[in-house]
Amino acid sequence: MNGERTPPAAELVREVLRPGGGGRIVLLVLDGLGGLPAAGREQTELEAARTPHLDALAAAGICGLHEPVAPGITPGSGPAHLALFGYDPAVYRVGRGVLSALGLGFELEPGDVAARGNLCTLDGEGRIADRRAGRPPTQKAAELCALLRGIELGPGIELFVEPEKEHRVLVVLRGEGLSGAVSDTDPQRTGVPPLSPAAASTDPAAARTAELVRRLTEQAHRLLAPHAPANGLLLRGFSQRPRWPSLEERFGLRGLGIAAYPMYRGVARLLGMQVASYEGSVRAAFGLLAQRWQEFDFFFVHVKETDAAGEDGDFERKVAVIEEVDAALPQLLALRPEVLVVTGDHSTPAALRSHSWHPVPVVLSAASCRPDPVRTFGERACLAGALGPRLAATSLLPLALAHAGRLDKFGA
Amino acid sequence: MNGERTPPAAELVREVLRPGGGGRIVLLVLDGLGGLPAAGREQTELEAARTPHLDALAAAGICGLHEPVAPGITPGSGPAHLALFGYDPAVYRVGRGVLSALGLGFELEPGDVAARGNLCTLDGEGRIADRRAGRPPTQKAAELCALLRGIELGPGIELFVEPEKEHRVLVVLRGEGLSGAVSDTDPQRTGVPPLSPAAASTDPAAARTAELVRRLTEQAHRLLAPHAPANGLLLRGFSQRPRWPSLEERFGLRGLGIAAYPMYRGVARLLGMQVASYEGSVRAAFGLLAQRWQEFDFFFVHVKETDAAGEDGDFERKVAVIEEVDAALPQLLALRPEVLVVTGDHSTPAALRSHSWHPVPVVLSAASCRPDPVRTFGERACLAGALGPRLAATSLLPLALAHAGRLDKFGA
Repeated sequence: MNGERTPPAAELVREVLRPGGGGRIVLLVLDGLGGLPAAGREQTELEAARTPHLDALAAAGICGLHEPVAPGITPGSGPAHLALFGYDPAVYRVGRGVLSALGLGFELEPGDVAARGNLCTLDGEGRIADRRAGRPPTQKAAELCALLRGIELGPGIELFVEPEKEHRVLVVLRGEGLSGAVSDTDPQRTGVPPLSPAAASTDPAAARTAELVRRLTEQAHRLLAPHAPANGLLLRGFSQRPRWPSLEERFGLRGLGIAAYPMYRGVARLLGMQVASYEGSVRAAFGLLAQRWQEFDFFFVHVKETDAAGEDGDFERKVAVIEEVDAALPQLLALRPEVLVVTGDHSTPAALRSHSWHPVPVVLSAASCRPDPVRTFGERACLAGALGPRLAATSLLPLALAHAGRLDKFGA
Repeated sequence: MNGERTPPAAELVREVLRPGGGGRIVLLVLDGLGGLPAAGREQTELEAARTPHLDALAAAGICGLHEPVAPGITPGSGPAHLALFGYDPAVYRVGRGVLSALGLGFELEPGDVAARGNLCTLDGEGRIADRRAGRPPTQKAAELCALLRGIELGPGIELFVEPEKEHRVLVVLRGEGLSGAVSDTDPQRTGVPPLSPAAASTDPAAARTAELVRRLTEQAHRLLAPHAPANGLLLRGFSQRPRWPSLEERFGLRGLGIAAYPMYRGVARLLGMQVASYEGSVRAAFGLLAQRWQEFDFFFVHVKETDAAGEDGDFERKVAVIEEVDAALPQLLALRPEVLVVTGDHSTPAALRSHSWHPVPVVLSAASCRPDPVRTFGERACLAGALGPRLAATSLLPLALAHAGRLDKFGA
């Protein structure tokens, strides 16, 4: 079994990238697109939605369902997007601290160490009584973050403490010679004291960072003491911004990520894409796309509301968002991208009110598509499509590159 | 990222097991379920069978065909079952000797060395004339096994010799400091003498065991000399019971294996499951299941007769067994398992009278299934199902875990 395995398509691509480039690719992601029938219904959200333009794309293009990570695995938003960009999320791991920073739009500099923090409740003996400090209002947490920012860690070390939501906070250390190889102080259970941070590598930077985290925790507990139930701080997922090959290095694509939420712009930035923000409906995103059409090869457009409606268990709203995107689609089609891929990063069925492991419908439209029998864009219809019922999500970008005329022959 | 490849779903699962557990999973295996149309027929055994309950499961659940090992690979029973339990049979290898012990229900202790033996015919020059000694009746082989048990290998070494069927026997050495790293004495061809056993590792235990096997063979040939054509013994597949992570360690499942044949209980025991035996029809197995319903998370129920009928080339009998299982199914459904998977471990088409490489129909039924178009349970119908036409068999357990609510999100 030693080591020899077929490289995935995304790795082979690098060997055959056509130097001259090729056509433009648009990846339109309706977050959490895949669904399930709600109680008493026959159709999923996408099947129930009236989507004449997506159906026309399905009829002209090739359809299927993709599997973001692996069968049965429910992906978080970060891993699911990495897969769509051709980065295997089981290999390209993002630390919890870095994900928190991305979600807040905090711009991590190279060398910064980020951690996800929990405000917590410590009892009289210093043991954790509640890992979430009774879920304080975010406003209260923001005040405590401001207090914690006053901690002095020594010359050359900057400290950032940002509120996320309720008990969740982001902690970032900035300075020379830091390392993410530090063990969690959060034992992820109650009845025990917080753990001592320890170096998780022999790199001296790890020992130094662990000592800074020890000091940080000590001072945090002193400052928070009068603020029970939020009288403690637990840290986990120490990590640095990963140094990965960029989308341009791997796939020869200059990319623009257009997203309303910071998390998705953050993931795009991790891969070296430029990013742009929009507010309001997807028409605003398509407007931005048109404005910057000449500058890029690859456009990632992110629509959050499908996922938000799914998480809220709101079947009808998810249907409405899909219909709104469909109605706006001609604006995008007018740009005549050589390749248009419309899909989700994962499923978020309103029936489950959460992300799920179900495969995600996808349509790829390009002049070079071989016709398949799919005529409508929906989960069941896509089962019969040319992309198959469980395409690895990481295969989508290589397919898009091929249809954009960006790949040469493999082997003479 | 060099060399880092996507871990299979079964490995990712360990990272996302929900601490609180989840629903119960039943895996009903109709051994050798997959088939082919017999001469002059249009339908496979499963397609020809009247299976209203399996069809109803197919209509409510998701269907497909699974591939036990890899395209074109015909699996033995051990590897095929390992795959269904989420253990990649190309990675988790069971030695031939251990498989023989499992098949006989011989309880191997840790450290025991097992080998598969053949009674054979040696000519006047000690060369192998017939590797199967003219296929002696099993009763005759049993008498010779009793004779061989008299061999003395020295202090602290116990010897077990058990008849399997015809020329096939199981040989087990028990004692301190033994090793399975010993080369075969069976050259697997005629016209040459048996091979000398040699240590296959530098471990002193291997040299010691090889010497014991040399002595064993020498004495066996002396004792068997008057019993031509069964006047020799060939040994292969020296192996010890593997130490693998249990089903509970890998997937958090306390499992019960219910099987009439020792081989299948043996494989279940290798993975740390408890086992129970039944006699007669599948109704007895379902009765056991009901009795022990509260004790376990995962139930593996094995039905052998589909495979036996296939091996006998008896199309009609295989159809009848499938119909008998279908008729008993309401007894199982009454327990309301959160997830029910019905499949085979491999195909055994009556037309071929043997195991085959053809993908195996599978239905997974759970409340969280997304509807697919399959309405009947059969090879052709399953091609259109949500699980696809060639799902890796090792993906089935991860999917079952997901549908049982036993998995958390991967990545935030």
